[in-house]
Amino acid sequence: MTEKTGLFITFEGIDGSGKTTQIRKLRNMLERSGRGVEVIREPGGTPIGEKIRSLLLDKSNGEMFSETELLLFEAARAQIVNEKILPALRAGQIVICDRFFDATTAYQGYARGLNLKDVGSINRFATGGLEPDLTFVMDLPVETAFKRMQSRTGETDRLEGEGLEFMCRVRNAYLEMSVSEKRIVVLDATAPIEKVFENIERKVWEVLKS
Amino acid sequence: MTEKTGLFITFEGIDGSGKTTQIRKLRNMLERSGRGVEVIREPGGTPIGEKIRSLLLDKSNGEMFSETELLLFEAARAQIVNEKILPALRAGQIVICDRFFDATTAYQGYARGLNLKDVGSINRFATGGLEPDLTFVMDLPVETAFKRMQSRTGETDRLEGEGLEFMCRVRNAYLEMSVSEKRIVVLDATAPIEKVFENIERKVWEVLKS
Repeated sequence: MTEKTGLFITFEGIDGSGKTTQIRKLRNMLERSGRGVEVIREPGGTPIGEKIRSLLLDKSNGEMFSETELLLFEAARAQIVNEKILPALRAGQIVICDRFFDATTAYQGYARGLNLKDVGSINRFATGGLEPDLTFVMDLPVETAFKRMQSRTGETDRLEGEGLEFMCRVRNAYLEMSVSEKRIVVLDATAPIEKVFENIERKVWEVLKS
Repeated sequence: MTEKTGLFITFEGIDGSGKTTQIRKLRNMLERSGRGVEVIREPGGTPIGEKIRSLLLDKSNGEMFSETELLLFEAARAQIVNEKILPALRAGQIVICDRFFDATTAYQGYARGLNLKDVGSINRFATGGLEPDLTFVMDLPVETAFKRMQSRTGETDRLEGEGLEFMCRVRNAYLEMSVSEKRIVVLDATAPIEKVFENIERKVWEVLKS
């Protein structure tokens, strides 16, 4: 069997779940094995995406409605899919994305209460139907994530701003989505970093060799 | 019968069709009759919309994909509907919009070839189902619009950039949409300004008094 080289992997989970650490470890491991890896973090990564990102973060814009927020994320996604992800996958690279459309389903759909059917349609429109081959959900109790974030300076605002109950809805959304989507692998993110990574590594090799 | 005061009117048509002139005349007429009028031009009109507008116009962003363009227009629309149009309509004002979702259907759907069902779904999501009470399509041959634009300094670029064939597809789209949508009134925009305005005025009073 030939190795499948172009592969699209996404990481999902609330802030403080350890996505960044695991993505760095996975990138290093794959690069050491001689593979081309592209790590992408929405909504930035393209000139248009960077401008959309600063728009989403700029508090001087006044109230941003949930629909506006979702459509801005999707605009950045459409751009990054066409400008970066598809060309990299076509060139046989491994693309790792720090959050992708499952995040929109979890945050804007389940947690903010936008219609899930609409969110699904717009996700498909923005991605042109592109789906990850493999999605890791870093799962942990919201309180644990919150304590981790508190120990990092200046990064508590966003979590505190949204509130524990909101983050709890996001966590539950990911768990619910994993039941119906075979590509979603739920990992216990309270386990030690190396232990979590072992599971990621095993799964990635399994998919690469299939 | 009581007059219906909160009314949502949109103007559609290619550049050079005379929308701006007719909107100004309609606003003046309605204000003289003592009505509150709000004129809106997408995608600007809100702080977020203005930033999206400059993003859409900024050529330094490199290639913008059609899906990105559509989603940015829809993000600005979601914001303007919630921040401006709905509050004005609830306050009983007459809102006049220089292009609304029919433009997305015509330009991005029919003319650029994006899936019309997707465009319809995203239009409904962005507007929360809000539809104009009355839509005027300023119809004229593309060549006539082009000549009008040429006589205005510095405004030929956009039309020339898109090309006559593209604008022709947009014109045909509006005509096709008018067949199935009763709210759409097609006007002969080659007629003298006063003649066109007579038709607009008659129709607006008809709707206001119904």
